[in-house]
Amino acid sequence: MKNKTIRTLLVQMEIFPGRPRINIASMLHSIENARTDGVELVVFPEMAIPGYLIGDEWEHESFLRECEECGSEICLASKGIIVVFGNVGLDWKKRNEDGRVRKYNALFVAENGKFVSPEKGPYKFVIKTLLPNYREFDDSRHFFDLRKLALEKNTSVEKLISPVKTSKLTLGCALCEDAWDIDYSLSPLNVLARKKIDLFLNISCSPFTVHKNLKRNRIFSTKAGQLKKPIVYVNNVGIQNNGKTVFTFDGSSCIYDTHGNQIICSPSFEEEDLTFDVPLTGKPFGDQVQLKEDGIAEIYRAIDYGTRKFMELCGIKRVTVGISGGIDSAVVASIYRNILHSKDLLLVNMPGKYNSQTTRTLAKELADNLQCCYAEVPIEESVKLTTSQINGITVRNISGKFSETLGVGPLMRENIQARDRSSRILAAISAAFGGVFTCNANKSEATVGYTTLYGDLCGYLANIADLWKTEVYQLAEYMNKDIFHAQIIPKGSFSITPSAELSDAQNVDEGKGDPLIYPYHDLLFKSWVESWNRTTPEEIISWYMEGKLETNLGYKGKISDIFKDKKTFVADLERWWNQYQGMGLVKRIQAPPVLAVKKRAFGFDHRESQMGSRYTAKYEKMKKLLFS
Amino acid sequence: MKNKTIRTLLVQMEIFPGRPRINIASMLHSIENARTDGVELVVFPEMAIPGYLIGDEWEHESFLRECEECGSEICLASKGIIVVFGNVGLDWKKRNEDGRVRKYNALFVAENGKFVSPEKGPYKFVIKTLLPNYREFDDSRHFFDLRKLALEKNTSVEKLISPVKTSKLTLGCALCEDAWDIDYSLSPLNVLARKKIDLFLNISCSPFTVHKNLKRNRIFSTKAGQLKKPIVYVNNVGIQNNGKTVFTFDGSSCIYDTHGNQIICSPSFEEEDLTFDVPLTGKPFGDQVQLKEDGIAEIYRAIDYGTRKFMELCGIKRVTVGISGGIDSAVVASIYRNILHSKDLLLVNMPGKYNSQTTRTLAKELADNLQCCYAEVPIEESVKLTTSQINGITVRNISGKFSETLGVGPLMRENIQARDRSSRILAAISAAFGGVFTCNANKSEATVGYTTLYGDLCGYLANIADLWKTEVYQLAEYMNKDIFHAQIIPKGSFSITPSAELSDAQNVDEGKGDPLIYPYHDLLFKSWVESWNRTTPEEIISWYMEGKLETNLGYKGKISDIFKDKKTFVADLERWWNQYQGMGLVKRIQAPPVLAVKKRAFGFDHRESQMGSRYTAKYEKMKKLLFS
Repeated sequence: MKNKTIRTLLVQMEIFPGRPRINIASMLHSIENARTDGVELVVFPEMAIPGYLIGDEWEHESFLRECEECGSEICLASKGIIVVFGNVGLDWKKRNEDGRVRKYNALFVAENGKFVSPEKGPYKFVIKTLLPNYREFDDSRHFFDLRKLALEKNTSVEKLISPVKTSKLTLGCALCEDAWDIDYSLSPLNVLARKKIDLFLNISCSPFTVHKNLKRNRIFSTKAGQLKKPIVYVNNVGIQNNGKTVFTFDGSSCIYDTHGNQIICSPSFEEEDLTFDVPLTGKPFGDQVQLKEDGIAEIYRAIDYGTRKFMELCGIKRVTVGISGGIDSAVVASIYRNILHSKDLLLVNMPGKYNSQTTRTLAKELADNLQCCYAEVPIEESVKLTTSQINGITVRNISGKFSETLGVGPLMRENIQARDRSSRILAAISAAFGGVFTCNANKSEATVGYTTLYGDLCGYLANIADLWKTEVYQLAEYMNKDIFHAQIIPKGSFSITPSAELSDAQNVDEGKGDPLIYPYHDLLFKSWVESWNRTTPEEIISWYMEGKLETNLGYKGKISDIFKDKKTFVADLERWWNQYQGMGLVKRIQAPPVLAVKKRAFGFDHRESQMGSRYTAKYEKMKKLLFS
Repeated sequence: MKNKTIRTLLVQMEIFPGRPRINIASMLHSIENARTDGVELVVFPEMAIPGYLIGDEWEHESFLRECEECGSEICLASKGIIVVFGNVGLDWKKRNEDGRVRKYNALFVAENGKFVSPEKGPYKFVIKTLLPNYREFDDSRHFFDLRKLALEKNTSVEKLISPVKTSKLTLGCALCEDAWDIDYSLSPLNVLARKKIDLFLNISCSPFTVHKNLKRNRIFSTKAGQLKKPIVYVNNVGIQNNGKTVFTFDGSSCIYDTHGNQIICSPSFEEEDLTFDVPLTGKPFGDQVQLKEDGIAEIYRAIDYGTRKFMELCGIKRVTVGISGGIDSAVVASIYRNILHSKDLLLVNMPGKYNSQTTRTLAKELADNLQCCYAEVPIEESVKLTTSQINGITVRNISGKFSETLGVGPLMRENIQARDRSSRILAAISAAFGGVFTCNANKSEATVGYTTLYGDLCGYLANIADLWKTEVYQLAEYMNKDIFHAQIIPKGSFSITPSAELSDAQNVDEGKGDPLIYPYHDLLFKSWVESWNRTTPEEIISWYMEGKLETNLGYKGKISDIFKDKKTFVADLERWWNQYQGMGLVKRIQAPPVLAVKKRAFGFDHRESQMGSRYTAKYEKMKKLLFS
């Protein structure tokens, strides 16, 4: 090692999943610039060439060959410079355990037009050792890991983890999860630390989750401090998806010095080529990056970014939002207004028999504030037609042996209205406007299916469906205050009772509306879906009986103020649990893709099986006890 | 070992996923009967207590505790008898690699009220060694495997694989995939064979796929012959699902003698308690089971069974089918007619402007043949209303700075009709009839999205969506011939041109209809979706250029008879590939659950990411060459 610093370029690139040619074009560009800039080491993210969350695209051999070719092109471009990048590592002569061609999640080091192999191990690439198989990750579905390889080669994993020696320095290379080793019996970085390493690299393709960056910082900072070596962390931006769930990538690439201080970082959700002379030894670096929790602002950035990128992916240039006067559609419309020119955003209010003047006025007020296109398309005539076509119709069989006259009940009438708005009006008017329409569902509704299938659950993307209703209000406040700096989302949309306005029982002017008490139910549902130890009625009833429910859920009020007695409490608990595991799930299966911003977004991050609503025997026992 | 045979009960039970209490009630019943029947060994399937495809239900600790308690109850019931069953094996003091409680996919042996531990290994249960992570399986998401345990314990996997010695015989125990070892570097059965084993057991929870039983038989027969030991194979029946994809379990439990002959088996798709004196040594058994391929009959059984069970799961007692006169809806209606009383099945024909008298008559004819309820509900008035509400509407912003008048084009008009039928009529009338409505989509349509979202792609279950159009015709023929023994599905539904009848361009009386040439396109799409080496345009164009396309796809005709020149061929290829990776996928994401009967049903068996339509550089090069 000649220098005490190494001039390094961290390439926080946007990865286009499934598009190797597009990705290497931008990579080659970065390498070219780096060379003229005197950079010695260029580091790209994990899976920079193929993308990461690409479903079963890994089964296409033509795609794999293309990734391999693209990797060779990057290698050839490494003249006079060290280039590190993520790609799929292939062994065409071996098989994965599914019988398909052997694939590794791999890190390649190239220098002077050639790949530099790790000191030990059979391949020209470093293999990801720890493969995540939780949340949205399916690594073991596609990639062979180092532990399986060790078993196959009848050797130990430790022997296969080795540094990569370049002409200038010795690299300790890791891929994403390799550094998040707390729950594994093996720490790849610690194994590497026993060898002489100058610099650790962690290349990642790590999706954004609110607050994750802080955790990541704790882990990497501690690691660098323990190893007394600098760590360069490179993550990508862009979006990737699993069909049902869309993930954003925030980048936040950064450098830790030998004392564990984060000394510089790239902005989140932006492409950046960050060049820095990384100190390989020495005193603590002067300036440190100060990370802060900014919850709702972070969430807004992720939603704004994810929505923009998803629109780009789908080629969407115009958007229609069904607008009710309530907070959800107001927030969705406002998000799009910040992305689109006002002439490309259409707000449609679809009043029916039960819609109040209050909400209709709020809808119009929002459109005026956003200065976008607006239309009112009433549904009553169509709802009447549908009802008249079905109410009183007689269905019979040929022999006339039986016949039956059908009737339209109150719940059916509610659903007819909701479907009329989305499947009849919005689907047609958005096509005529030249674009798509949005799904404005929030996570509270999605959890318990308080929504109509083929009705308000329709749309091309559900970009606030990972937010509880209470978070939607927070986001609305945040947008007025920090994005628009004005009361764009009308005051009234905050203050009216949340309501679907589908019947007289949901009359907002009489303060009637949704059957959900959001400040309580949001926390209850959150404990079912998002909390680490996911609760079930067994835990809830036990906390209730112990008087700990408020504390354990974090509810500021008193449960006894909501439910007049234990019978009402239990009925409410079972009502929503039945919905969560029953019709809620039925509807989620056919719901639009959800933009994930938190832990356990519905879809691939929170996988569900239709099994009907279930209670443990212990729950039933406690319930008996409660009423005894 | 005292006897040369062991009286064994193979319990081919229906497992109710997520319902441990229900499952052990039936297990306790089987054990009781076995005892009175002089049975020495009772064998239940893999995951008999919790179920297997249960999504992230594995994260509920209350559920895990209940499974553990249920396991103890089964253990207690093992007085005087050896009981083998599958359950989740828990180690509450350790963590999985996702940080959650340590879980194994485990086999328990109980005798005289106590668990019998394997000779080696830290637990009272046998651990599944080979964890599948392909198709619908997510084993590594939930379960720790023996190889990870060996690493953690710093020992070899072989040392942890050991027999279970009961009072009567020594068992070589394996779970499902453990026997399907061809693509693994380790064979648990071969390791066990080095010890003194009297009898091998394989407990499975193995979903049905057409032709899989034959493959399974080859594998197990070969294994038993090689090991020179009998194998008892126990699989469950019932259905389990991953939300988007519903799988049937055929059971087909059976016994192989020491010569590799299958000597007895349980019927598929039926619960059975099969008692048999399993020969532990001796000559080849006289009678052998003759297995045969019966493709379409097997598929029909799976669809019939899966549909019944899914209805039971959802509590559905009445079904509405939108009926067009075409083959798809006719087949779906016929399937339900075999499940439901005719008074509980409603067929609804919804004629619009473009529906011919031909198909309307066919729809009525089918209803008459099935003797079920029938109704005609026209859509034209509503379609006109929708069109008039949107065509010519002016949307404008507040300042009046811009306004735009919208128009309804031909494709929009087609979609308006399709949505009107499903989201407006079927959703409402099926609710009034007291039930659900079906999705009649086939796999050809689903692949390329030749279907309308919120239109004909709606429904509670898509039970023929894993069948190509050509297979739907086969199924229709099979049902008339072997199920109804009569021309229930009208001749005309076979002979008319398949058509959506949504415009003049799709006039069946003029022989106009779908843009798909099913005998060719079905094979093309199959090569993209179902073939082992999944093709992409790169392979297709290369076969075309080499003149091998017909042979490689298995197409009986000539490609040149379909496409007048290479330009037309390539345009068609790209048209449908773009649809498959583009709008087809957009629609599949919001499609109803698909009943899987073959390899790679859409959903969890064929995971997809929205990335837009993609072509490799090699494809582009070949295309250039073709036109040069």
